[in-house]
Parts: sequence; structure tokens; C-alpha cells
Amino acid sequence: TQLGDYLIGIGKKDFDIRKIGQKEGIQDIHIVSDEYKLVSKKWKVAPTTIDLGDGVCIKDGDMAVIAGPCSIESEEQIRKVINHLKENNIKMMRGGVFKPRSSPYAFRGLGLDGLKLWYELAQEAGIKIVTEVMQVSQIEEMYPYVDIYQVGARNTQNFNLLDELGKVDKAVMIKRGISGTIEELLQSAEYVFSGGNEKLILCERGIRTYERASRNTLDLNAVPILKAKSHLPVIVDPSHGIGLREYVTQMALAGVMAGADGIIYETHEIPEKAYSDGQQTLDFTQSGMLADWIRRTFEMRKSFDLV
Amino acid sequence: TQLGDYLIGIGKKDFDIRKIGQKEGIQDIHIVSDEYKLVSKKWKVAPTTIDLGDGVCIKDGDMAVIAGPCSIESEEQIRKVINHLKENNIKMMRGGVFKPRSSPYAFRGLGLDGLKLWYELAQEAGIKIVTEVMQVSQIEEMYPYVDIYQVGARNTQNFNLLDELGKVDKAVMIKRGISGTIEELLQSAEYVFSGGNEKLILCERGIRTYERASRNTLDLNAVPILKAKSHLPVIVDPSHGIGLREYVTQMALAGVMAGADGIIYETHEIPEKAYSDGQQTLDFTQSGMLADWIRRTFEMRKSFDLV
Amino acid sequence: TQLGDYLIGIGKKDFDIRKIGQKEGIQDIHIVSDEYKLVSKKWKVAPTTIDLGDGVCIKDGDMAVIAGPCSIESEEQIRKVINHLKENNIKMMRGGVFKPRSSPYAFRGLGLDGLKLWYELAQEAGIKIVTEVMQVSQIEEMYPYVDIYQVGARNTQNFNLLDELGKVDKAVMIKRGISGTIEELLQSAEYVFSGGNEKLILCERGIRTYERASRNTLDLNAVPILKAKSHLPVIVDPSHGIGLREYVTQMALAGVMAGADGIIYETHEIPEKAYSDGQQTLDFTQSGMLADWIRRTFEMRKSFDLV
Amino acid sequence: TQLGDYLIGIGKKDFDIRKIGQKEGIQDIHIVSDEYKLVSKKWKVAPTTIDLGDGVCIKDGDMAVIAGPCSIESEEQIRKVINHLKENNIKMMRGGVFKPRSSPYAFRGLGLDGLKLWYELAQEAGIKIVTEVMQVSQIEEMYPYVDIYQVGARNTQNFNLLDELGKVDKAVMIKRGISGTIEELLQSAEYVFSGGNEKLILCERGIRTYERASRNTLDLNAVPILKAKSHLPVIVDPSHGIGLREYVTQMALAGVMAGADGIIYETHEIPEKAYSDGQQTLDFTQSGMLADWIRRTFEMRKSFDLV
Repeated sequence: TQLGDYLIGIGKKDFDIRKIGQKEGIQDIHIVSDEYKLVSKKWKVAPTTIDLGDGVCIKDGDMAVIAGPCSIESEEQIRKVINHLKENNIKMMRGGVFKPRSSPYAFRGLGLDGLKLWYELAQEAGIKIVTEVMQVSQIEEMYPYVDIYQVGARNTQNFNLLDELGKVDKAVMIKRGISGTIEELLQSAEYVFSGGNEKLILCERGIRTYERASRNTLDLNAVPILKAKSHLPVIVDPSHGIGLREYVTQMALAGVMAGADGIIYETHEIPEKAYSDGQQTLDFTQSGMLADWIRRTFEMRKSFDLV
Repeated sequence: TQLGDYLIGIGKKDFDIRKIGQKEGIQDIHIVSDEYKLVSKKWKVAPTTIDLGDGVCIKDGDMAVIAGPCSIESEEQIRKVINHLKENNIKMMRGGVFKPRSSPYAFRGLGLDGLKLWYELAQEAGIKIVTEVMQVSQIEEMYPYVDIYQVGARNTQNFNLLDELGKVDKAVMIKRGISGTIEELLQSAEYVFSGGNEKLILCERGIRTYERASRNTLDLNAVPILKAKSHLPVIVDPSHGIGLREYVTQMALAGVMAGADGIIYETHEIPEKAYSDGQQTLDFTQSGMLADWIRRTFEMRKSFDLV
Repeated sequence: TQLGDYLIGIGKKDFDIRKIGQKEGIQDIHIVSDEYKLVSKKWKVAPTTIDLGDGVCIKDGDMAVIAGPCSIESEEQIRKVINHLKENNIKMMRGGVFKPRSSPYAFRGLGLDGLKLWYELAQEAGIKIVTEVMQVSQIEEMYPYVDIYQVGARNTQNFNLLDELGKVDKAVMIKRGISGTIEELLQSAEYVFSGGNEKLILCERGIRTYERASRNTLDLNAVPILKAKSHLPVIVDPSHGIGLREYVTQMALAGVMAGADGIIYETHEIPEKAYSDGQQTLDFTQSGMLADWIRRTFEMRKSFDLV
Repeated sequence: TQLGDYLIGIGKKDFDIRKIGQKEGIQDIHIVSDEYKLVSKKWKVAPTTIDLGDGVCIKDGDMAVIAGPCSIESEEQIRKVINHLKENNIKMMRGGVFKPRSSPYAFRGLGLDGLKLWYELAQEAGIKIVTEVMQVSQIEEMYPYVDIYQVGARNTQNFNLLDELGKVDKAVMIKRGISGTIEELLQSAEYVFSGGNEKLILCERGIRTYERASRNTLDLNAVPILKAKSHLPVIVDPSHGIGLREYVTQMALAGVMAGADGIIYETHEIPEKAYSDGQQTLDFTQSGMLADWIRRTFEMRKSFDLV
């Protein structure tokens, strides 16, 4: 099973690692000096593969494309997006049914019923579902209908949520906090991983800085740094990263060259009419071109033999 | 009851306020152009008083002193802190029993049992309890033992938690997010207020900036701005705001002059031995002097007749 | 003379301090581990006094009040401000004759002629002049008319300017950079000090953060930290620090409690008509009250015996 | 000549543009609502080409590669870098002879003599020189030996320097300020342009944020935004942008995909022995591969027909 058994010793003083290694039942032993342990490359060198079944994977050496609307809105909208994804050979669909909103008066999503409807249609089409979980009580009710639980930027340090996701055997994608450090993202992943769930994906989605010409500052520096520090796959979200439709394509391709293992972006048939985030959402024509360019850019990157 | 009934209309277009005002059953009507409505001074001009019973209040025109350790550690520790508070006429005690920690391997607090023990001792001494609630499921179990639920800086935008706290009839103190804006703090308060709970306190506790000489950057600018925008009381936390024991006193007094309605700070008999946050915790001698100086500084501020 | 002779050795390896101390002609020897050396308290424990003559000083244990308009505009304006200062026993006047402006199309100040006019009137009234120097070539021409050269927030790391100011025997006030660290401010001071000019004043004026409710984020944490690290006096500028007239008074008083040795703020007869920065400028009534409150707050702070 | 004559009217009120257009001698008239006028695409739609002679250009639709050490160190070092550049068909060399340093005790560069030596060798090899100018007095003495004056991140708002560079007829590359906004970078360019020098290049080199895992946060969002707002070419500096050698290559390629018109990076025969910035400097093998990959990535970008 993927739920392994590790004993993590946090030593306050130096100790003799050889003494422990000789004890009975010890299979393997590592010293990891980072604050995060199990997600560190010092502990596990081989990159982690997230296998969603039906040949759909997120992993180092591959390029995952995840697209879809900000919010799930209606059956018709879901059908249109799914058709678009199939035409472009995109296997994973994003979309929100529970929406965290700064203001209590904004649209909060279709909820579980929306998810069930979406699941039915996605299932049929062989499309995997990525959607945000906002609180512990939703984990179980969402379970049958989700392929990847997304932890949003406002919940990156919601430690109870992370603890509970550590007990689940489905993949979790953790977005970097709104002003989270790279180190904190890895520690949040450590919460889930140390709970027993190793199916983890990290996502750079822009950070808060003083700059206001863009919605966030997409920190692509984080991509090669995360890849070097951790064995987990790293995804880039250019839609939230810049927040302006005209430039999402460039930032997506920049993310590929920075070393991402996948790109997640927002698309909608008519972005101007989307319930939320329309100004950063691509239409289907733009989305189709982007998916193609992502793959071609990735092929070129592979040919460069970057370390 | 404190649970009032308001109908909040979010108009997309101009409408004639007089037409609505003439309808039957309408008692009062306001136009509030801010994103937050009910916590705005445009809606309610008179400052809100948080009455904890037994004559203990947090309100504009008064100076609340809240002190205590970062973590509740033991019966002995609680007794010592309570004695110290009583000697210095401090009526509210802070302390954590559920601790949010960046690393999953750090001390996470004594939990509900610690809270019950603390409650018993505090009750006896006539001391009110301020402590952090981390998730929805804790609200009910903590209810009998808490005077003020604290929402921590990592949960300022945990909207489910805010929603549920809106249904409770006990006071809630919301800390500003780690990199939260003043506007976002007010919107988070709006979540609770619009749910029906008007017993709200706002807390400035420092924000994340590029500066590393201090733990956070205490943004005292936020104090007069929050006081001008909202009718809710504003508290300053200098311990987290600077993170260095030697300077907590100065920053507490600066907070008073900036216009705070109260100060919350960390104290411990032997800060060096505290389970957490020792480097920003005052010992009892420092704490006693600070409590006195806070009150004297507040008296001077009142004499200045600041608007 | 104030131009002392120091030999600063930057050792790459450990060396035996005793060997050097025994050499002939060595009067005193210090090891300073900070990046800044001469401005550090590790090198010079006693606070530095800036003596401007006629009994006007800026120093630890005293409270300097510096007030005046953003820009020097006209003879009439200067006369009015000077009268206001005299009525309130304020001995130092700020004002810009060379104005750094983000846009090349904004008002850039009256220049040297404005300074000469100002000097004449200030001299007569026994008022000291604090004004910004923007480039090396201005140092000499401004020299006869200036008591304190101000280095603005955009020039904190203009190293050529700092080098040249190191050769002058008049006081220099260095503002913290727009996004400068505390460490960088001390290093900039080190440039001037190591050049031979020890008459230095440090000024906290707010830093750039993501928060937009205020013009800058006044970092009062910097005050006790700078006072602890350096022997130089520290001034707070609440006008730029918050940028909103209504709250300048509170932030000035907060600065006093944080431990400042002086406050510099903007005042104008009719702030709405000021050529620049009107929205953060106090009128004379507000300014008069503030000067009084600053002094009373300082007296209280002294009585607290803060370390 | 490139020094054109423009009359820029900053109107406070609405006026009738047709009345002005009909006056004699008026060739063309534009309304530009941005704070910057002449560098805006609203005023000049066609991209600006910087022609350095001998067929070396920086312009939209082309990919400039600029490489070289942080500091010019010695004749031998210059020769080695030039050979490396020639082998890889790189036509522009960067290097500092005047070095701005936070600490007054750090290496400050070889100065004008170093520049003359470099010029002689570069001239021979047909290589163009890009180097930093730190103050007004250096402009004239550097003039004969420089192809592109670089304005460093600490001087982006040194307005006197910008004014004087506006009078020169050589190209100027302005780096974004350490915590400068995109808007401020454009306004700084406006200073030079409005002075009469239209040979301007903008450079994104990373901004200061709270993140410390990298030296700066390379803000690639700025690239498409600057390209959309201005007709000036945009260069990316990945060396300062991330500050860690292992990741400079990825960030350079990401910069190309984000839409840069050129890449400037640091290279040295033995980075570990470089006088400065060694930790972010590529060796010649890495540099050679990068130059090739930059060009191939650019060719692919062109094939994508990005708008």
C-alpha cells in the first residue's frame, strides 16, 4: 500500500546513526537536515509519480495539462468544456464547486451536487477531476467524485485540513500560500506526507508583492528550486500567476521552460460571461493553441538535457 | 438578542433608495459603498462594545490588557500566570491549547483537556480566556470554556471557520492575515458579522515583508485606519509584531499611541523555558511594568483629545 | 577635528588581535562582526550627539522636532512657516528645494535660489535648515545654506553621493530606502562615516509593502532595533510613513513611544494648496498641538525608564 | 538626428485636440493618458530598434544575447571572455568597472582604466560593451568606450543621472529598481526619452520580496506587460533574477518564452574565483549551451505566432 510506515526521529543532539541502523527491523535510515523530511530529495531521490489511472499521470519527465473553468456553472458549461478538452487531448479538468471568496456576498459555487453532475460527465469522457476542498468535512463527501483534491492558496497552512488529507488515498495538489515561502509549501506537503498520503503535487500560482500591474507575481524561480529540493512533481498556474488573459499563454510557456511538470490554466467558452475570474480565462481557441504549444515547448526542453 | 436581522442588497445598478425605504416593515436603510458592509462605520457609527461579563469589556475609550503564555503547558504554569495577572489587575489571559505549527513535528498544544483545566482555574480567579480555535469541529467543544475565540493569522481567510463563528454568541478576535490587507481583515470580519455574531475584535499582529531584522513588520498604520473604517475595537499584538523580547515593550506603547483599544502580549515566568515563542515573551517583572505603562500612556492619550 | 583616523581591517581569517594591539601608535582596537563597523554600537557604545550650534541638538535622551512644508514655494510661504515654528518653539525646519519626482513632468522645486532665500529668513529667526541633496554637484553649492543634508529614500544607496557626503563637516540625515532593510541603512551610514563624517542621523520613513491603504508601511520596529545596533540618533517621519493627514499625529506619537530621538513631519498653512504632498501635510493648528504632544509623550517615555 | 522635438502638454482640464491640431507647424498630435507619455505604445506603436552599428541590434522580433562577468578583473580575464563570446557568436559583453556595493569595504571595480583596456580588446573583436554608469560625472569620461550605458537597480530613480543620460546619443539600458514597479520603470525611461535620448532598453532583473530561497524574485510577468505598454525592447537578467547558478539557465529560457527581446547573464571562466557574484555566474560550458538554447527557444517562440 501507499501508506508506508516511517519513524521520524527529531533529534535535539547528535547521535550515532550506526547504532540505530543495527537494530532489528530497521530497513533503511536517512538523515535529513531540512525542516521537511519525507518530501525532501535527501530522503527520496527518485521523483514521485502521481498515477490517476487510465494511463493519466503527473510526473517528472512528462507534461501534464490541466484546464477548465474557474467555477463549475451548469451542465451545459461542463459539456462544452469537456468537448473542448477531448478535442485537444487534455485528460484533466479543473473547476471549483466550493469557492473561497474574500467577500461573503460573492458566488460560492454549486457545491456537492455540482460535483456529482460533473463527475458523471467527466467519467463518461475519461477525464480526471481536479477541484478544491475547503474543509475537513468535505473530504469524505467529495471522495467518490474527485481525482485530485486541490488545497487552495488560502488553505496552504490550514493544518487540520492537511492532517486529514494525509489519511486519504487520493492525490492532493497543494497551492503555494498567497504569501507563502517555498519552505512553507514544502512543510505543508510534509503534513500530508507524514500522515501517510504520498500522492502529492506542488503548485506555484503567484505570490503577493507590492506590484499591482499584475494580480500576483508568478514566482517561476520557485519551479527549479522546488524540483531540486523535493521529489514531488511541480505544476504552474499562469492564470492566477498573472491574472490577465492576454499574457497567460506566455507565462504558461515560461513555466514549461522553468521546468514545470505540468500547467494548470483556466478556460471557458465565453470568458467574459464566466461567473468568476473571467479576466484571466482563455477562450477555447486560445486554450487549444496553448495546449499544443505547451507540448512542443516541453519537447524542446527535453531535447536540451537540462539538469 | 444580538442576532439581528439585516437584509443586505448588493445592487449591480443604481436604484432608488427612496422606493425601498417606503416599503412596509423597513425600519432603517443605508448605502455602504465598501466591500464590507456591516462592519463599516458608514453603516454603524457608534463604536461596538464587547462585554465579557463581570465588568470586563473591550471597547473604544478603554484600554484592554490581555497577557499570557504562547502555549498552555501545565497546571503549575497556569497558576503562576494567573497569580501574576491578578497582582497586576489584568483581567484577560491569552494562551494556546491548539497550536498551528508550520512543521508537523512541532508541539501542537495540550488540547481540550488543557483548556478545561485552564478554565477551572481562570473561572475561580475571575479571569477571562482568549484562545485560538483552529477548525469548525472545535467551536462547539470549546464553547463552555472560552470567552473570546481567537482566529489566528493563518485562518483569517478560512471562510468555513468564519461562517461557523458567525453562528456563535461568544466574542471572536480576528487576527490580520500573515500577509493580509486591511481590507481583507474587514471582509473576514464581515463574514462573521453577516452570519449574526457582532461580538468582533480586530487584531493587528504584524505582516510579512522583506525585512528580516524582526519576525514580522508591525503595521501600526493599520490601527488608526481600522478605527476610522470600522466600528469594531482594535487590539495590537506587539509580541508577534516584532518577535524580539527586548523591544516588545516599546512597540506595545507605540500601539497605544497609535490608537489601539487594547494590547495582547506574551508573558511567562521563565521565557527561556517556554514551550514556544520564548524569544518574544516577557518575564513577569517586564510584564508588570508594561501593564502599568500601557495604562499611563493610555491616560495621556485620552488627555490629548485625538480625533 | 571630527574627521578622525581609523584603520578598518577586514580580515578574511582569524587573526590575533593582541599582536596588533601591541604595535606602536595603536590607541584602541575593536572587533566588530557586523557588516557595518563604525556606526555599530559594538565599536562605539556612547550615543552620538549632533550639535547644530546655538544649543540645537539631535541626540539620545532628547526629542528633536523638525517641521515644515514638503516643498519650499515662496517667500511668503517660508515666512508663515517660520512664524508658526517660532510660536511653537520648533528650532528645525524641513523643506525641499530640489525635489525627486517619479514623473519628469512634475514640479521639481525652486532650486538653489529658493534655498538662499530660505536661509536668509531662517538665519534671522534662529531656525536650522534640513533639506534634501540629490547629487554630488549640489553638495558644495548648498553648503553655506544648509544645517542638515537630507539623503532621500531614492538615494539611500547612491554610493557616490554618500562617499562625497563623507568628506563634508555638516550633518547628514539618511532616510531608509523605499524598500531598504535596516542592515542596508546602517551600511549606507557606514559609507558616510567611513569617509570621515560622523555627524549622522538615521530616519525611518516607511517601507514599500503590498498594503495600499496607506502610502507606505511605517516600520516602527526599526526604531528600537536601530537604537540597539547603532550609536546614531534615529528620527521618525510619520508624514511619509502613513501618507494620510488624519493619522499623522497618531503615528508621530507612536514613533516617540517606539523610542525615536526626534520626529520630522510636514506642515503648511493650507495643506490643500501645497505644491506637493498636501494629503499628508498638517495645518498649523494640528502641527502646534502635535509639537506639544510629542514633547509630553517624550517626557512620559523618559519617566518609564525603558532600557 | 535621433534628438526629436516634442511638445508635451500636461493638461489639467479637457481641451479640444482639434484646435491645436489645426495650428501651423503641427505635424502630429497624440493623447496619452498614462503617466509616461513618450515611451508609451499609445504614442508610438512601432517597436523601437536599438542599432549599435556593425549589424548589432536590440529589437522586437530578434533575440539579443549579452554575456560577461560581473566585474572586469584583468586583461587576461577580458581576453578569455571575449574568446568565449566569439566562439559562441555572442556580440555584446557585459561587465562592471564601477561597482555599486552595499558595503563600503567591498571591491568597487577597476574604474576608467579598466574600461579603456576592455574597450581596446572588445573593439578588436567586434564586441559591443554594456557597462554600468553610476553618476553624472562618469557619463562624459565613459562616452568613447561604451556602447550601452547601464543604469543599475539602485539608480533607477536617480533622476539627475537620468536627466543627463537624456542628453547623450548612446543607448541606455535601465534596470528595474530593487523594489520598483513596472510603472516606475516606464517613468524612469520617460525621464531619459523626454530629455531627447530615444535609444532605450528596459531590463527586468528581479524584485525584492519576502522570499529568501532566491536572491530576488524574477518577475517575468513584467515582460509581456512592458512589451504591451511600451515600444521599447525588453531584456531579462536571470543571473540577478534568481541569483543561483544552477537555475540561471532555466530562468533565461523562461524569459525567452515570456517574450523577452534579449537575455543578459553572467559568465566567467571559473565562477568560484570571480571577484563578485560568483554564485550566480555560469562557466563557459554552461554559457555556450545556454546561448544556443536561447536561440532555439526563440525560434520556436517565433513559430508560435504569439500576439
